[in-house]
Amino acid sequence: MVSVDINCDLGESFGAYRIGMDREVMPYITSANIACGFHGGDPLVMEETVRLCREAGVHAGAHPGLPDLQGFGRRAMAVSPGEARAFVKYQVGALQAFCAGAGIPLSHVKLHGALYNMAARDYALARAICEGIREIDGGLKLLALSGSQMIQAARDTGLPWASEVFADRAYQADGSLVPRNQPGAVLEDEEQAVRQVVQMVREKTVTATDGTRVPIQADSVCVHGDGPKALAFVQNIRKRLEEEGISVSAF
Amino acid sequence: MVSVDINCDLGESFGAYRIGMDREVMPYITSANIACGFHGGDPLVMEETVRLCREAGVHAGAHPGLPDLQGFGRRAMAVSPGEARAFVKYQVGALQAFCAGAGIPLSHVKLHGALYNMAARDYALARAICEGIREIDGGLKLLALSGSQMIQAARDTGLPWASEVFADRAYQADGSLVPRNQPGAVLEDEEQAVRQVVQMVREKTVTATDGTRVPIQADSVCVHGDGPKALAFVQNIRKRLEEEGISVSAF
Amino acid sequence: MVSVDINCDLGESFGAYRIGMDREVMPYITSANIACGFHGGDPLVMEETVRLCREAGVHAGAHPGLPDLQGFGRRAMAVSPGEARAFVKYQVGALQAFCAGAGIPLSHVKLHGALYNMAARDYALARAICEGIREIDGGLKLLALSGSQMIQAARDTGLPWASEVFADRAYQADGSLVPRNQPGAVLEDEEQAVRQVVQMVREKTVTATDGTRVPIQADSVCVHGDGPKALAFVQNIRKRLEEEGISVSAF
Amino acid sequence: MVSVDINCDLGESFGAYRIGMDREVMPYITSANIACGFHGGDPLVMEETVRLCREAGVHAGAHPGLPDLQGFGRRAMAVSPGEARAFVKYQVGALQAFCAGAGIPLSHVKLHGALYNMAARDYALARAICEGIREIDGGLKLLALSGSQMIQAARDTGLPWASEVFADRAYQADGSLVPRNQPGAVLEDEEQAVRQVVQMVREKTVTATDGTRVPIQADSVCVHGDGPKALAFVQNIRKRLEEEGISVSAF
Repeated sequence: MVSVDINCDLGESFGAYRIGMDREVMPYITSANIACGFHGGDPLVMEETVRLCREAGVHAGAHPGLPDLQGFGRRAMAVSPGEARAFVKYQVGALQAFCAGAGIPLSHVKLHGALYNMAARDYALARAICEGIREIDGGLKLLALSGSQMIQAARDTGLPWASEVFADRAYQADGSLVPRNQPGAVLEDEEQAVRQVVQMVREKTVTATDGTRVPIQADSVCVHGDGPKALAFVQNIRKRLEEEGISVSAF
Repeated sequence: MVSVDINCDLGESFGAYRIGMDREVMPYITSANIACGFHGGDPLVMEETVRLCREAGVHAGAHPGLPDLQGFGRRAMAVSPGEARAFVKYQVGALQAFCAGAGIPLSHVKLHGALYNMAARDYALARAICEGIREIDGGLKLLALSGSQMIQAARDTGLPWASEVFADRAYQADGSLVPRNQPGAVLEDEEQAVRQVVQMVREKTVTATDGTRVPIQADSVCVHGDGPKALAFVQNIRKRLEEEGISVSAF
Repeated sequence: MVSVDINCDLGESFGAYRIGMDREVMPYITSANIACGFHGGDPLVMEETVRLCREAGVHAGAHPGLPDLQGFGRRAMAVSPGEARAFVKYQVGALQAFCAGAGIPLSHVKLHGALYNMAARDYALARAICEGIREIDGGLKLLALSGSQMIQAARDTGLPWASEVFADRAYQADGSLVPRNQPGAVLEDEEQAVRQVVQMVREKTVTATDGTRVPIQADSVCVHGDGPKALAFVQNIRKRLEEEGISVSAF
Repeated sequence: MVSVDINCDLGESFGAYRIGMDREVMPYITSANIACGFHGGDPLVMEETVRLCREAGVHAGAHPGLPDLQGFGRRAMAVSPGEARAFVKYQVGALQAFCAGAGIPLSHVKLHGALYNMAARDYALARAICEGIREIDGGLKLLALSGSQMIQAARDTGLPWASEVFADRAYQADGSLVPRNQPGAVLEDEEQAVRQVVQMVREKTVTATDGTRVPIQADSVCVHGDGPKALAFVQNIRKRLEEEGISVSAF
């Protein structure tokens, strides 16, 4: 039976600041990417989010970002591969402590925001980060953008990996995402988004903006939990995937 | 043969800011307490300090502090036991990642600055912190002030522990340190400091300011590496302990 | 005609994190206490909040706090009077720049959270902070807890001041607030809260929990904008004060 | 009589971390660029540095940087013009409060590190920053790289400006600096550096690496105070400029 994972960024609240609908989205996902205190999250939020994962049977992963809380990790920063590797090790280790405390394993690592985008394109950065993850635990899985330098670096360093796709983003003929600043980058039609995922999972292709069918590996679909509309979409996509006979389970 | 550990706080540099004579002090100590990014230290400094420990054969421990870089973790903060536990878990986990990367075990945890002092006196805080350390790894040793609530909490929670003494601080008849704001709190005479340590290790007592001999357990002596004078003292105390037939080795 | 100011803490959002209903509460208040980046707020939020004040004709004040974003400035910290003075000067100056940019004057300073409480009780801290504010501009007004050490320090240093009261908090016979951890500290009955304010403004007294009438100076009433219920209360109190023939205008 | 200003970055210590030889360099310079707490500096350090400027009769300027203490403001960050403007306003305002407290005017603004470099090349960024400075006080002078977009933006917005040159950096035929990663970027010969400054000030030209003489405006020479060697160079250049009959005074 064909299956796919549904992953969501969680635990991005900080101190008195609440963000995201973590509890509400939890029943519909299979993997959580938990913020580790650099771009969002704090020790109490991490502890609580890991606990929520355990209770829901959701796989807990680390979601390390750039050290830029004010920018929510979304502003590119000129960090060296060595800095990026150390930042990722620090954050992954911190989350591991909470997983150990909760008695569940840390399952995976997915980069956040600007670091995700930078490492998707920059092999040296990607490789240093993959090496850093391997140094901690060679069994940790990397969750990264399909066809990116991160996937390539994971292959080259022997790190297990899973390929992430997006339900609501348009793809180009080379398999990359249409940049957000271009028209049509985001699929506004929810049903179209669902069909795109179903095609990705079942046929291992995506229809690019120019109409060509591009091969793609969809191990996991990224969803969002940052508002009621996002939550409704998560619920719908989960339901529709199951109706289509696609099993939803962690990669 | 009688033996004692010599521990020192290290890895407190941050970004472009250098503090401490880490490389110079390393050959004379047996345990390092490595800052974890809250009161000092950063991911690159932590990675480098763990590497120095491995090369020197020095035991690497975590030195978690309050989230107050500007105050270097020396300002008391009204944190709850739950907050303190989460802060310690976060920082210990982060350092563990660098130890894993270097292929050496994390040996112990010693609190820093205001958190050290607060938890020495406040059992609820001490207990929450000990429970947090145990959740991560029940084999981690706590290094704490002799006779403090931290030692009591370690006993009560079954956490292995070692008792820390100070060479250059005067003790009161109840076994506690003379507060720093009182005259005579710090022993200025280096030879007197050495004799105090030798007595502590060999006779398991310390002579209090009122002349009484108080029982004390000296598993580890705390030294400093924050300047040339401190470094000279470390070199001297190490030499003198060995001359006195006391073995210097990690607890 | 009797009059009173209504003040509210605003501009406490940070980066991607939104907190408070700033726009909604603005039409009902006369003075805004704007977070300055230590416990909440950031440069963009400050710039925007000052602009909102200018548009609404609301007096813009600084709301400096402790350097503890994670704790939202609510955790007491052992800062010296000199540190507190420097923290307040830094934050007040930063907000002045945005006021200058918007072409409106900075009207007042009100401390936030733990710093507010610490300085209300500790004269040395209060005095250092008042001196710091005077150093910047002797015309800035201090807004502080009625009967507190801050008011005393403002008198002693010649700083203009205004006395703040709370609509929804019970008072003790010595004019101080019933501590929050005691039963009855918060008035749940909205109509009772309104009557308390009307009495404070018109009769310059408050009825303490033991029934005695205590003299109190009500230059400004503190309200909150952190949720729909708080907003409804602000709207109601403004309406009721005007019905009672009390003019609502900045102190 | 020909004259030139000597400027130096100061006040970059943070909390327990000391950096720079601020007191030692003060007698030899005429303008200080004071860190404002983002890339370095803290409220207490700012207060103290402004006091040192007043005592030495050195002009106090603001030295705003990117919000990246760990990277000392040296890592480029993708900030928008609006963000940069708000960051600069915040920091300039904070320093103004300490100048007001010390009874001296804030004389100028010079950007730090990566922000200096980014705004030297990016007109939109430069213009937003110049507008922000003007909003605070149209009399503040901008100190910026000779021939940069910052100078252009100052011209366009009517902000007073001064053009900064470097004693120890080689110049290219277009008047720009030889990038640091190229051989010969830094003049190692101290006497050559002095001659370069004398030529810049007296003849208003610099000899580029290809031998051509390029026009340059040298209102201020940048020196460093970050070590004994740098300090010796400052002392030497000050002495040599005076020997050459060049008056050293603030721009």
